[in-house]
Amino acid sequence: MKIKIQQRELSKCINIVQKGISSKTTLPILSGILLEAKEGKLKLTGTDLEIGIKSSVDCETIKEGSIVITSRIFGDIIRKLPDMPIEINVDENNNMHIQCGNSKFNLIGQSAIDYPQLPEIFESNYFEIPKDLLKSMIRQTIFATAQDETRPILTGALLETSNNNVSLVAIDGYRLAVKKVSVNVSEDIKVVIPAKTLNEVNKILEDDDAEVKISYNQGNIIFNIGDTLITSRLLEGQFLNYSDIIRNEYKLKAKVNTRDFQECLERASLLAREGKNNLVKIDISDDKLIITSNSEIGNVHEELPIKLEGNDIKIAFNSKYILEGIKAIDSEEIEMNMISNVNPCIIRPVEDNSYTYLVLPVRLAADE
Amino acid sequence: MKIKIQQRELSKCINIVQKGISSKTTLPILSGILLEAKEGKLKLTGTDLEIGIKSSVDCETIKEGSIVITSRIFGDIIRKLPDMPIEINVDENNNMHIQCGNSKFNLIGQSAIDYPQLPEIFESNYFEIPKDLLKSMIRQTIFATAQDETRPILTGALLETSNNNVSLVAIDGYRLAVKKVSVNVSEDIKVVIPAKTLNEVNKILEDDDAEVKISYNQGNIIFNIGDTLITSRLLEGQFLNYSDIIRNEYKLKAKVNTRDFQECLERASLLAREGKNNLVKIDISDDKLIITSNSEIGNVHEELPIKLEGNDIKIAFNSKYILEGIKAIDSEEIEMNMISNVNPCIIRPVEDNSYTYLVLPVRLAADE
Repeated sequence: MKIKIQQRELSKCINIVQKGISSKTTLPILSGILLEAKEGKLKLTGTDLEIGIKSSVDCETIKEGSIVITSRIFGDIIRKLPDMPIEINVDENNNMHIQCGNSKFNLIGQSAIDYPQLPEIFESNYFEIPKDLLKSMIRQTIFATAQDETRPILTGALLETSNNNVSLVAIDGYRLAVKKVSVNVSEDIKVVIPAKTLNEVNKILEDDDAEVKISYNQGNIIFNIGDTLITSRLLEGQFLNYSDIIRNEYKLKAKVNTRDFQECLERASLLAREGKNNLVKIDISDDKLIITSNSEIGNVHEELPIKLEGNDIKIAFNSKYILEGIKAIDSEEIEMNMISNVNPCIIRPVEDNSYTYLVLPVRLAADE
Repeated sequence: MKIKIQQRELSKCINIVQKGISSKTTLPILSGILLEAKEGKLKLTGTDLEIGIKSSVDCETIKEGSIVITSRIFGDIIRKLPDMPIEINVDENNNMHIQCGNSKFNLIGQSAIDYPQLPEIFESNYFEIPKDLLKSMIRQTIFATAQDETRPILTGALLETSNNNVSLVAIDGYRLAVKKVSVNVSEDIKVVIPAKTLNEVNKILEDDDAEVKISYNQGNIIFNIGDTLITSRLLEGQFLNYSDIIRNEYKLKAKVNTRDFQECLERASLLAREGKNNLVKIDISDDKLIITSNSEIGNVHEELPIKLEGNDIKIAFNSKYILEGIKAIDSEEIEMNMISNVNPCIIRPVEDNSYTYLVLPVRLAADE
């Protein structure tokens, strides 16, 4: 293999595929990047077998070929080279020679034959979604996936399509986040994507409105983003039937300014996190919402104007859980729907049904 | 104590004095900030007994007084409040009441009586130095202080004045950095300042050319920077007689572009750090400087044009030690003076005698 390639473009491509490589792999070949030069393109691949990232970049192919090269060192070297053409030459013993200006590096590589195959794209099963929409779907739900492995299926988010709607759903037992958007999709699917995959997809997506092509089969999903393909295993198992949890009845509905509420909660959290249970109490009556929290070192009292329909309520939350949902909402005002202080609170952007956040209250002892 | 103060100004002042507070203190009162309100000023103090930082800010003093309040929580609360006037009220039981807009906090404080006294300023023993000059003196030497405690005196930098010159000197046994500048100073002094103190001074100094007033006695030094005072204990013991180490004789003198040399060394270091000893070899002959380094995974060869007077040489260095000195130099070109591959290499900016960096070579076995 022998190619000429621009430093800046190769460097950018390495940054992308390195997101697929785990530093803790037990299989030595997986700590490498697969390089394949063919027909004026250099294809780079990184994988930890759960997730795989393939990205390609234009190059001058003098001789086609392939090699696996240690990701960290190769990436560090390319990033440190000046922004000039780089010549990469691989001999039959998998020794890589890199030349750029007056810099020359020799690196020992491995044969590409032993590198695992990533799943291929399934042209029949796919739909397209704008990049910025996918980005906001991920951002508004991913934080509500379970962090612990007691129910492995909940460490992922459910991607569900039906009637030209696409939903992404995350539940961790304390809260639930659902984002539902309209997208042209012909087939009903229901797959659970690992949170780690969605995180990497989110990092790779740029903030424009080009389309992402999502294809899938029973075991795998592929995100096709311009010159980059992200493939991932799906999680196996039955996801919670989340639609049963979101009830539409309520006894009170309170509207409040999103950012003001967020700031009050953030300040109250400063004391809540000193306590054992991260507890904030919310007292809604008439036109006021009062947040209080106590800890050994002091207490806090925050007040906000609200628009209330229905009963007064005193209710308590884990401040982290309620705050993360509020922070995920961009619209100016939110509404909270509640039944009682032992039923879930449902939070939605006002006049926007695309996002629903549900959070369980904390039951207080009689004397609290 | 009762005051009104602007959120932004109080917040800025807290950020400064928190640099003096250690998170690992064993004396509970030292995890607090001392607040003293008097005559339209609020004075804040943070200390870990080694270093002390005092900063003051204008306020409306409704009632004079003082309190010690937990630094972390108090700082977090003030930073999270909106940019509005804050009213702080302390009762006779050291309970602090904070009100800002619709936010109210109560915090339990401690009596200021138990807070340690910082050393006072010694008006007779002082000199003044421009801020930017002090900043560059610290930046160009501090990295060469010893990191381990086997010779405690070397964990600090020597501040020496004589004949209207001020020098700052750091040595760790492998390299030596000296910055010497002209400053109007009447008395000869020789004190060793802990590296930690210099680091904090460096962070607090803003990048302008106002003067810093440095005053001292046998055990303490005080940096007076505008509204902020930084006091520090000095290190006790005899510093190395560094001037004996810097010889002026040489067998070769090589001039090289500073940033090009730095970039070549940084690339070579990528492989050097994979090896056991972080070794880079430098081969100087005619008009070329060649840097090489080997490790199990590969090797590197970098070439640079130089202007050489004197003998050729093959010499080796710990890449970290030579690189840190080069990075500290701002001028376009440096010169390296050497005697042999077992004598120290002296590096200076070309046509600038204010800075000297000396680094020991690594002796190579016969077969290397």
